[in-house]
Amino acid sequence: MATRPDNARLDDFIARVTSGEQRAGARLMRLVDDRHPLAFELLQRLYPHTGRARVVGVTGNPGSGKSTLVDQLIRAYRERGKTVAVVAVDPSSPFSGGAILGDRIRMRDHATDDGVFIRSLATRGHLGGLSRSTNDVVTVLDAMGYDLVIVETVGVGQDEIEVVKIAETSVVVLIPGMGDDIQAIKAGILEIADIFCVNKADRDGVDRTVKDIRGLQLLAGHLAEGEWEVPIVRTIAPQRYGIDRLVETIDKHHEYLEAPDSERQQGRARAREAHVLRSLTRDRLVAAMERALAGTDGGPEALFDALVARTTDPYSEADRLVRSVVEVLRGEEEE
Amino acid sequence: MATRPDNARLDDFIARVTSGEQRAGARLMRLVDDRHPLAFELLQRLYPHTGRARVVGVTGNPGSGKSTLVDQLIRAYRERGKTVAVVAVDPSSPFSGGAILGDRIRMRDHATDDGVFIRSLATRGHLGGLSRSTNDVVTVLDAMGYDLVIVETVGVGQDEIEVVKIAETSVVVLIPGMGDDIQAIKAGILEIADIFCVNKADRDGVDRTVKDIRGLQLLAGHLAEGEWEVPIVRTIAPQRYGIDRLVETIDKHHEYLEAPDSERQQGRARAREAHVLRSLTRDRLVAAMERALAGTDGGPEALFDALVARTTDPYSEADRLVRSVVEVLRGEEEE
Repeated sequence: MATRPDNARLDDFIARVTSGEQRAGARLMRLVDDRHPLAFELLQRLYPHTGRARVVGVTGNPGSGKSTLVDQLIRAYRERGKTVAVVAVDPSSPFSGGAILGDRIRMRDHATDDGVFIRSLATRGHLGGLSRSTNDVVTVLDAMGYDLVIVETVGVGQDEIEVVKIAETSVVVLIPGMGDDIQAIKAGILEIADIFCVNKADRDGVDRTVKDIRGLQLLAGHLAEGEWEVPIVRTIAPQRYGIDRLVETIDKHHEYLEAPDSERQQGRARAREAHVLRSLTRDRLVAAMERALAGTDGGPEALFDALVARTTDPYSEADRLVRSVVEVLRGEEEE
Repeated sequence: MATRPDNARLDDFIARVTSGEQRAGARLMRLVDDRHPLAFELLQRLYPHTGRARVVGVTGNPGSGKSTLVDQLIRAYRERGKTVAVVAVDPSSPFSGGAILGDRIRMRDHATDDGVFIRSLATRGHLGGLSRSTNDVVTVLDAMGYDLVIVETVGVGQDEIEVVKIAETSVVVLIPGMGDDIQAIKAGILEIADIFCVNKADRDGVDRTVKDIRGLQLLAGHLAEGEWEVPIVRTIAPQRYGIDRLVETIDKHHEYLEAPDSERQQGRARAREAHVLRSLTRDRLVAAMERALAGTDGGPEALFDALVARTTDPYSEADRLVRSVVEVLRGEEEE
């Protein structure tokens, strides 16, 4: 690592990030994206400066009006004197360019406002990787000093649930008249939702949707259990209808977690750290598996062909591959 | 392992499974579900008997009429003299009982038909686990001798894409008038779709939906690329409209893959084996991570608390945890 900048320069860079300099922050996020050798060390150094931002997850299907809603949340929190960063996560975005274009359009509205920062993340191509990338970006934004970090995800599948595990408060956005969609609000979503937001509340069927959510909550026993009764807030984002109430509800959840003599805040924070640690570790193990696979005798294609020919079986080969992973990791440790 | 049945009994059990005895097959699937110590060995022994079934993936959002469509596919293939097994995968099913109830209702229609077998899989709770479970169930059904194994998944997220990777032919089901949903047909889905099925084709907006799919295909360059032009088949499942055409299209894709002097079938089979091997290995690595975490000095909660307090950082701890995983795996190897 002959090109490694000296410590003074790294310290200076870290200082620029923690002072909230947007250019330095964006640069670090790019280093993280590119898995630059320095990214890891920089994130390590940054970590003591984190843990102060409130992280709010906003998740919902495409077409639920999430972007406009998040935009209104930005405005509302800015009016309350808070700085806001947004990580927009799209696990299945087809064209990485699209995400960046979207960033520019969305940033334009806040271009002159230093108190707002928006960053998009598209798919990282493999299971779990997106969750780790999101965590890293939140780490940077948190260290930059934003009061609020909104993690916005498209879709309500297992991926999104993974991504939102980093949030202190999770808002699940639904719209009326999507009876089919209600079916899709499965256990995972009920478990992560701290607040339901029924957006486009001027549409037909809004009462039905609210009733359906309550029914599902009752069915799953999520209403009676905790002390926090998961509220349902109705909004019409473009008209700002319900936005103040949504902000109050998000803040109320924060106060609920922070209530003195309650262990809630600590419990949430602990779950979040556990999630971050697991994502990072899983990511490294999967990467080691790929390296082990690439180093298979005769190449991985020969192994796959042998499996197709049924001259071996994947159960025995998985055993062998796990042993190779151990060898790969031990070899790298000794270096 | 004092209670391990002798080899003769295991051989007998395997013979019953490979002869297609449904009770034996169901029993093995339960052993696999419960991660019974014998399951692994039985799957290993079964593997040489697999690779003959055609695996067809059917994926689509809730409300797309997938179950009825799959039901019609079962009938159509039964009329053609083929035996059919279905694995219905729901990554986010809230109540495991629901899946079983659904099985019973669906099985009722085919209760007297030995040529049909339906099995549901609900969420296994962690990333990637569902994919491995699906693979194992397909292995059993394949060994049981079913001509066709349909893997039906709810939703079109990354999880479902993972699950469907085992299929030779993937059918993606959409319905008209879900403009929002079209947005959700992102790269992953375009990449896995061998056939698009626009179900509920008597609804308004069917032409628009077909046009939207074509537009997305063009945009992503998926139409011109391969020799297989991904067809769009219109169906109205309850009326059996379009079902014959769908079956013909699925069969045509099979013939396309099998075309002499083409490497396609081998390529698909190789990709499938690679996917199965990766799922199995990833699952074992993640399980080892959990064991390593459980064995942390002072317990995992103390570690999470230290992370919350910022007296350590997750990047260093992930390094340490990876080293513990290596120790755990080496220790187990020596046993």
